[in-house]
Amino acid sequence: MVGSIALDAVKTPFGAVDNVLGGSASYFSTAASFFTDVSLVGVVGEDFPEDAISLFRERGIDIDGLERVAGKTFRWQGEYGYDLNEAITLDTQLNAFEHFRPKLPPRYQDNAYVFLANIDPELQLEVLAQVKHPRFVACDTMNYWIQGKLAPLKAVLQRVDLLTINEGEARQLAQEPNIVRAARTILAMGPKTLIIKRGEYGALMFNGATTFFAPAFPLENVYDPTGAGDSFAGGFMGYLANVDAVSEETMRQALIMGSTMASFNVESFSLERLKSLTYPEIRDRFRAFKSLVTFADLPETTE
Amino acid sequence: MVGSIALDAVKTPFGAVDNVLGGSASYFSTAASFFTDVSLVGVVGEDFPEDAISLFRERGIDIDGLERVAGKTFRWQGEYGYDLNEAITLDTQLNAFEHFRPKLPPRYQDNAYVFLANIDPELQLEVLAQVKHPRFVACDTMNYWIQGKLAPLKAVLQRVDLLTINEGEARQLAQEPNIVRAARTILAMGPKTLIIKRGEYGALMFNGATTFFAPAFPLENVYDPTGAGDSFAGGFMGYLANVDAVSEETMRQALIMGSTMASFNVESFSLERLKSLTYPEIRDRFRAFKSLVTFADLPETTE
Repeated sequence: MVGSIALDAVKTPFGAVDNVLGGSASYFSTAASFFTDVSLVGVVGEDFPEDAISLFRERGIDIDGLERVAGKTFRWQGEYGYDLNEAITLDTQLNAFEHFRPKLPPRYQDNAYVFLANIDPELQLEVLAQVKHPRFVACDTMNYWIQGKLAPLKAVLQRVDLLTINEGEARQLAQEPNIVRAARTILAMGPKTLIIKRGEYGALMFNGATTFFAPAFPLENVYDPTGAGDSFAGGFMGYLANVDAVSEETMRQALIMGSTMASFNVESFSLERLKSLTYPEIRDRFRAFKSLVTFADLPETTE
Repeated sequence: MVGSIALDAVKTPFGAVDNVLGGSASYFSTAASFFTDVSLVGVVGEDFPEDAISLFRERGIDIDGLERVAGKTFRWQGEYGYDLNEAITLDTQLNAFEHFRPKLPPRYQDNAYVFLANIDPELQLEVLAQVKHPRFVACDTMNYWIQGKLAPLKAVLQRVDLLTINEGEARQLAQEPNIVRAARTILAMGPKTLIIKRGEYGALMFNGATTFFAPAFPLENVYDPTGAGDSFAGGFMGYLANVDAVSEETMRQALIMGSTMASFNVESFSLERLKSLTYPEIRDRFRAFKSLVTFADLPETTE
């Protein structure tokens, strides 16, 4: 996976933290590490804390592709109101990330599952140029790139199996308010599968002619939604890589596993909850998703 | 069921209609009539069209409880933007509805399943005083009554089995932004079961200690969401009355049947789609809901 590594300052109605580990690569890699070996490509500055490196190592994440450069690490400052679906960005300092050019160590280049987190689509293309025969490539993106880098983004979409994107951004990319029509338009741009993320309202997966829906897990304590989308992607890709089979059935399970990892992630700030998570907890919540949506067939007599 | 019968003027980005049949009682009764015998209590004015009466009769709806009084029928004028979740009310003329006092014909008083649509909670209490031994009572309400008639609304909630309510109104009633906590607060007010409606994001049912989620059906053509909540309630209550069993299993099926009826209703203006609907179409969409949310258990090897 390639993505950002950040030091975040986050404020929600339930508390505030400063100078904590964040960024798509941190959330994705930690979530995915419960299921598979993860190779991380990213960049940090001189101020990047040793305990974050230790966390990656403890989770078995390969950080040979993690560059350390002069200057500071990428920093993001954001705030959420009671509507936890929408972050307000207060400050972004690209720092080390500004001149980042992803370089894959040779042993990464044969990896079968590739995730391109939400970064400049030109950098996503550079990563794709370095992987040899991936079995399954997924990417994320955002409004900023849809507005400013549509041509390279469309080139990326031609080369990925899966796009994960927020609902509003799907509408923007397709220029279509109806989400089913928007999905069809986006699938015509290249990806075989599209996952539309709706935050606390779950996620829809359009895979060829089939549609699958996963709710967000109803939680009593949501402290910080930062990283939910990347934890989701980490659970999804990690699960797929684990079973090493890409089918409608495994992708449906992967979507639930992504939702499972996202549901844990939002229960605390930064990566605190993911750090303490165990596989039995993951398995139990996956099963709780099943009970949340299961219903019996119609009796024959209803007519 | 007791509720409003209206003549609506509705505008959406996909068209506009004027002077069409609307109101909670019309949507609920028509949807429920696919599953059970419906007894309607409501009021209309002298201008109420004969073809609406014919529709009720064709659907087998008992309209002995439908009063006709001097003056005009209740009229509502509303508009929706591309965010079809939120109606903007442009005009409301209570007319015949202003002095409405529900009177149940004697043969209605033994009915087992009772639905109190979104009307003044004092009127909902008057209906409850006229039914003898209902097996299952459900009600709907809205922000207007939560603000202005909280005491009688709380008296209603002590006497119903089920409350259906929109998400924002659930937060308002419970004075709690988190929806799981809000649900617990509302269940403590009386109802054994709570359904929180989220429009295009589906519905959550809290039934004692269990939680069930139904998505909204992903549709390519949503023309008019007016009456979706009442079609939902009609499908829910009609299904329960049909199987005449109130259990976790039947209520889950009922929630899907409610979502099914709501999904048809939004496909056209007024009751146009419900009018032409057939039971095989209903059954097929119920099954499509199943395929929308079904996923396989985890393999034993994932650890």
